[in-house]
Amino acid sequence: MSLLAHPPLLPLEHGGERAWIQPQLDTLCATFAATAAQRDRQGGHAAHERELIRASGLLNLSTPTALGGHGANWQTVYRTVRQLAEADSALAHLFAFHHLQVATVLIFGRPEQQARLLSDTAARRLFWGNALNPSDRRATAQPTPGGYLVNGPKSYCSGSVGSDRMTVSAWHEATQSFLIGVVATDAPGVHVVADWDAFGQRQTDSGTVTFEQVFIADDDVLIHPGEAATPWVTLRSQLAQHVLGSLYAGLAAGALRAGLDFSRELARPWSASGVSRAVDDPYTQLRYAELWLQVKAASAVSDAAAAAIDEAFAQGPSLDAATRGDVAIAVAEAKVLSHRAAMEVTSRFFELTGARSTATGRGLDRFWRNARVHTLHDPVDYKLRDIGRYVLEGRHPEPTAYS
Amino acid sequence: MSLLAHPPLLPLEHGGERAWIQPQLDTLCATFAATAAQRDRQGGHAAHERELIRASGLLNLSTPTALGGHGANWQTVYRTVRQLAEADSALAHLFAFHHLQVATVLIFGRPEQQARLLSDTAARRLFWGNALNPSDRRATAQPTPGGYLVNGPKSYCSGSVGSDRMTVSAWHEATQSFLIGVVATDAPGVHVVADWDAFGQRQTDSGTVTFEQVFIADDDVLIHPGEAATPWVTLRSQLAQHVLGSLYAGLAAGALRAGLDFSRELARPWSASGVSRAVDDPYTQLRYAELWLQVKAASAVSDAAAAAIDEAFAQGPSLDAATRGDVAIAVAEAKVLSHRAAMEVTSRFFELTGARSTATGRGLDRFWRNARVHTLHDPVDYKLRDIGRYVLEGRHPEPTAYS
Amino acid sequence: MSLLAHPPLLPLEHGGERAWIQPQLDTLCATFAATAAQRDRQGGHAAHERELIRASGLLNLSTPTALGGHGANWQTVYRTVRQLAEADSALAHLFAFHHLQVATVLIFGRPEQQARLLSDTAARRLFWGNALNPSDRRATAQPTPGGYLVNGPKSYCSGSVGSDRMTVSAWHEATQSFLIGVVATDAPGVHVVADWDAFGQRQTDSGTVTFEQVFIADDDVLIHPGEAATPWVTLRSQLAQHVLGSLYAGLAAGALRAGLDFSRELARPWSASGVSRAVDDPYTQLRYAELWLQVKAASAVSDAAAAAIDEAFAQGPSLDAATRGDVAIAVAEAKVLSHRAAMEVTSRFFELTGARSTATGRGLDRFWRNARVHTLHDPVDYKLRDIGRYVLEGRHPEPTAYS
Amino acid sequence: MSLLAHPPLLPLEHGGERAWIQPQLDTLCATFAATAAQRDRQGGHAAHERELIRASGLLNLSTPTALGGHGANWQTVYRTVRQLAEADSALAHLFAFHHLQVATVLIFGRPEQQARLLSDTAARRLFWGNALNPSDRRATAQPTPGGYLVNGPKSYCSGSVGSDRMTVSAWHEATQSFLIGVVATDAPGVHVVADWDAFGQRQTDSGTVTFEQVFIADDDVLIHPGEAATPWVTLRSQLAQHVLGSLYAGLAAGALRAGLDFSRELARPWSASGVSRAVDDPYTQLRYAELWLQVKAASAVSDAAAAAIDEAFAQGPSLDAATRGDVAIAVAEAKVLSHRAAMEVTSRFFELTGARSTATGRGLDRFWRNARVHTLHDPVDYKLRDIGRYVLEGRHPEPTAYS
Repeated sequence: MSLLAHPPLLPLEHGGERAWIQPQLDTLCATFAATAAQRDRQGGHAAHERELIRASGLLNLSTPTALGGHGANWQTVYRTVRQLAEADSALAHLFAFHHLQVATVLIFGRPEQQARLLSDTAARRLFWGNALNPSDRRATAQPTPGGYLVNGPKSYCSGSVGSDRMTVSAWHEATQSFLIGVVATDAPGVHVVADWDAFGQRQTDSGTVTFEQVFIADDDVLIHPGEAATPWVTLRSQLAQHVLGSLYAGLAAGALRAGLDFSRELARPWSASGVSRAVDDPYTQLRYAELWLQVKAASAVSDAAAAAIDEAFAQGPSLDAATRGDVAIAVAEAKVLSHRAAMEVTSRFFELTGARSTATGRGLDRFWRNARVHTLHDPVDYKLRDIGRYVLEGRHPEPTAYS
Repeated sequence: MSLLAHPPLLPLEHGGERAWIQPQLDTLCATFAATAAQRDRQGGHAAHERELIRASGLLNLSTPTALGGHGANWQTVYRTVRQLAEADSALAHLFAFHHLQVATVLIFGRPEQQARLLSDTAARRLFWGNALNPSDRRATAQPTPGGYLVNGPKSYCSGSVGSDRMTVSAWHEATQSFLIGVVATDAPGVHVVADWDAFGQRQTDSGTVTFEQVFIADDDVLIHPGEAATPWVTLRSQLAQHVLGSLYAGLAAGALRAGLDFSRELARPWSASGVSRAVDDPYTQLRYAELWLQVKAASAVSDAAAAAIDEAFAQGPSLDAATRGDVAIAVAEAKVLSHRAAMEVTSRFFELTGARSTATGRGLDRFWRNARVHTLHDPVDYKLRDIGRYVLEGRHPEPTAYS
Repeated sequence: MSLLAHPPLLPLEHGGERAWIQPQLDTLCATFAATAAQRDRQGGHAAHERELIRASGLLNLSTPTALGGHGANWQTVYRTVRQLAEADSALAHLFAFHHLQVATVLIFGRPEQQARLLSDTAARRLFWGNALNPSDRRATAQPTPGGYLVNGPKSYCSGSVGSDRMTVSAWHEATQSFLIGVVATDAPGVHVVADWDAFGQRQTDSGTVTFEQVFIADDDVLIHPGEAATPWVTLRSQLAQHVLGSLYAGLAAGALRAGLDFSRELARPWSASGVSRAVDDPYTQLRYAELWLQVKAASAVSDAAAAAIDEAFAQGPSLDAATRGDVAIAVAEAKVLSHRAAMEVTSRFFELTGARSTATGRGLDRFWRNARVHTLHDPVDYKLRDIGRYVLEGRHPEPTAYS
Repeated sequence: MSLLAHPPLLPLEHGGERAWIQPQLDTLCATFAATAAQRDRQGGHAAHERELIRASGLLNLSTPTALGGHGANWQTVYRTVRQLAEADSALAHLFAFHHLQVATVLIFGRPEQQARLLSDTAARRLFWGNALNPSDRRATAQPTPGGYLVNGPKSYCSGSVGSDRMTVSAWHEATQSFLIGVVATDAPGVHVVADWDAFGQRQTDSGTVTFEQVFIADDDVLIHPGEAATPWVTLRSQLAQHVLGSLYAGLAAGALRAGLDFSRELARPWSASGVSRAVDDPYTQLRYAELWLQVKAASAVSDAAAAAIDEAFAQGPSLDAATRGDVAIAVAEAKVLSHRAAMEVTSRFFELTGARSTATGRGLDRFWRNARVHTLHDPVDYKLRDIGRYVLEGRHPEPTAYS
């Protein structure tokens, strides 16, 4: 099906290597899609799938070539995330959050830190998770000679379960701000409890991380408490937001593909339709076109946002506020369109596949459940508000962890 | 909450008894709502809940007073169904299908049959299910002295598991038409297997009924093979369709209520909203109004359809085709609006309650799963087609099992 | 076309007279519909049409029988308005505003005033307009012996041009509130300038009324400056709001009817459709059903709001705030649904009638222009906000001139 | 306003000249926007505006550089059309149809014809119109020595009034197919009557062209009757379709811009909003974002379609059916999204600008009227059907004048 063909990956900055990505990705997707329904039912830790991702080499996609990675641009990374999300949006989240932490080191870290942390990551194919939830200030940082001691819990830590490294934020009372650093997940005093219990995105390896006298040496501190935020530093929240949008777009495409496959292979024409194949029903044709157009628009605008991210990323620490603001708007546009495409397609396609497609064994409701849970990360109406303010007055959103 | 207050039941034809219905219904709803999430997870036979319904006396609602029932009109019955569906749409389906079979006896049966079958039903509070699936012709009827022998399986028999009586259809090869009769569920040769396995409406006690040399005496034959269908006889499919629409409207209202309760009691205001209570968020207010308007419109048009059914029902066997056709349009209107309200509200309310409302334990996704499965009974676009044809040319839908 | 048949008028309170209303109304509608396109192009004063309305006797519909009127309830009046709006929404506005001023006398006036003003109105079939725009405080009231002197202009006075009587509001500086009274349009010092210049609703006889030392005797003062507003008094703004909603519902129905007529009589099937009549196109059938469902829902909810008004109106000056608040919500619901039905139907039906239906001579764009202009009276999003607040917390809208 | 900034034109194939296009275009747009409302009221021939377009040099945009034109690619041409449509969609139609006829010569013509006809066009800045309406077979072609004689009328000839050259189709009875050729508009026997009379797109210089013994020499015949259509030849209808989509996208953007300008400069905050500027109203911000997202998605997908056209165009006569089919789908996607954006934005923005924005003098209803008339060219539901068929089965639309 050419319309739903995986979009070709964009050229890597340092080409030549590109040929291997698509087949690796296709293999991963096929493998994950085959077990997605079953793993959705079971939930739990995606240990086996993590190893498949690790083996694919795709964990090194975003790491600069100078540090041993593949130096893919963000357009490539986000398209990879999107395609993975078609097959399994929970694993795509794990994968995307790994790259988001790599980006975090690239954005927040000093050159020495980038070199040390990411070379190691590339060489050993380490998997990163996060313990950064900005709404949870219970984990605190106390200055201590040579670094900080971190204590307390951090909730909603995506990708923490089974990770090798984590970015961590800890509240610093004196400056009323966060320290951001890096820890090895198996460091002494770091306890990860898998307590994610939502009705969707069930294998995101999300958990609560509790820190008990965990020492973070100055070398591993990416941002010290009280450091002023620059446009460059706040670009990170846009990379995080575009992970969400890319997942939603992928979920929409995945559900659409599942519906189309069912309609083509299994659906029966309705008795009153007068046609002999379900795919010849004029209403089925109309409705699939409606759903497809949402996927199409979301994907096109999503690609544009990724391109904007690449441009801004290329500016590095000198990134100005206006360009960062333009990225925020582009990412918000993609997120709203992808959010809506995901919610609409994952729910509506059943009207074209019919009652038999609701059998528990097929697990086709997982698309909706995954989309519904994931799209609640932060409220879509405030994305619209930010876009509206910009359209009306050219006003960029205030940089926050969500905007 | 007055807007979502259970609408007052309409007066019964033979008043005076009305006072007891609402409290019984409210008690049932409160009981069912408290365990709905848990029973949704477990699925399985609703044996305990059936007994609570039986004990409430509401099984006799639609049976004429002359036969020992309460003689409620259909407006009352459908509103009862709708309210039950707010609390638990699977049990509401069981309940509604019982009354649909009572209606089947009243429409298809001779006075003697009505008197015999329904007096017994009223006196012993019997629970009816069905084995009527018109798309399954595997169960067949062979004439035999004094009646018919029925053999073969019948799939998708809602309410069959745990029922006392069933209406049954069996294909008669010679006339290429169905015999419709009545059997006791515990009659020899009747085997009910609970094989319903969809991701929603999990306690509808639906199953496959297999008949093995089951004798149906002429006395228990409601419609003999080859009998011509009259407008009156085809009215039954409209009563069945309005069960669906009423359930959808109830599902929409139930999900809205759950969302509102969460927003009021548990939701936190968004950081960027500038308000201190979630209910003061201007977007939350707007979005709830959008959802409510769908429920409101669906309910209003649904009540109108029930009133049209009552009028047509009152005409009895002399019902003319035009009035039957008008009922079909009214029922179709209600069904489309209720379908859409259900799909929209059950999916969208989460955007107002937020990520925490997706905890598995709350089971709030059951509304969407129930609505999604149930709304696939027959395709909504063909209801629209029928309405469109009528609006354009005054053309009534051809009477079928679905229209 | 039965679905779009004019809904039967509800019984008048003092029946027996009902028989004459529908034929009179049908005749007016047919007459107005025949010239609506032409009068839309010309704009200007609807002098001739006012006389036809006057001659029909329908101006006396809302006046109590004791005062020589027909004592129709508000459900009847609003349905009459709705049907007139199908034919010509500008004239329907004139007609509705007449009855709104009659209601104003009934709500604001003392029994003596009601008797005197409305008996005269009934006997002489006087036509009322208004000069009440609450956003315009330029017309002021100065106390003078025996009454007040009014000076200054009042803009947006619907129905003022060509009226016999007007309700008037004039700002009273000392109390920072309005005096509300009654004037004869031909009284000395009253100057009406027809300056309405919008692209729709072109014959609403709206103008700017300028007062030059106009004396309003105490006898003609309905509300003195500084009088406290009671729930009863604030009910008037709900009657005004429901005029708007009823007009919108009528506009939607009128546009739908025009589209259906064109599709049936003049439209050609699309070359790729494979059907030989436009009405057999499956997409045309689907789309008309979509439009019809909006009209249907709006009408059903609109009727319910009118019934709520009748109930509240029957309570008279003892009306409590909660009942008034419930009316406000019912009216807001009807208004939002009718607003949307009007905007959707008046714009979308063209997709079913095709390019030839855009000929200037047919003037079928007037439905959209009329709906677009009229629906901007006050912002629909604040109706939604009010409904949302009520659904969330049972909070009634604050009584204002718009809510 | 950066979001609505005119998108930068894509580089021309033979760069260096690019610098002049944007300022010329900006000047034209500003000039046309200033008089658009007035010219919409007057209708009639756009003689003066044609001369301004001619003087701008933009008529030569699509003509190859080898023939004296600017050799712009189609992405540039369509973006130019879109920007013009923001200012005045009737003139944009004139302009686009000129380039469509240039494309017609490039697609249908032999190299000699291209050289002769287009060199002349470039040198003298000739303005092309069309007389090609494929639904009208009344104009016929009779073979005659050295060419054909054309007789009869042709309706709906966009851009014919005031043109210098026209492409013409004439029905050839014997082969049941069209001859397609070129005539000078002032040739003997060619009569153009301006009879366009729709409520929108009032200055498209559309008319009925009547041919009276008009001789078309073989040299001026682009396609002889009975010539087989190749994918390359049928590409023309996609270029025509994308003119429509580009105009719709431009109309949507133009209306949005008009709304935003009004909201920023003239709108007053609503009394119940609690804000002091209209642009701070949270609902206004939300709604503008909704509208903007439609424009954004339509524009992004529209650019992608233009890129697909450029790729296909570059293949020339060897274009294969599959690539032509992919173009048809890309163009259909853009057309549906742009159609809907246009209809939604042109109607809805008024809810954000309020009643005062409906003053006749402002003429802001012209956006809706233009969009409504223009979007009826061919039914949007059949575009959806074609897309649906493709998504379901990879089936390309059958090449016709519309698909």
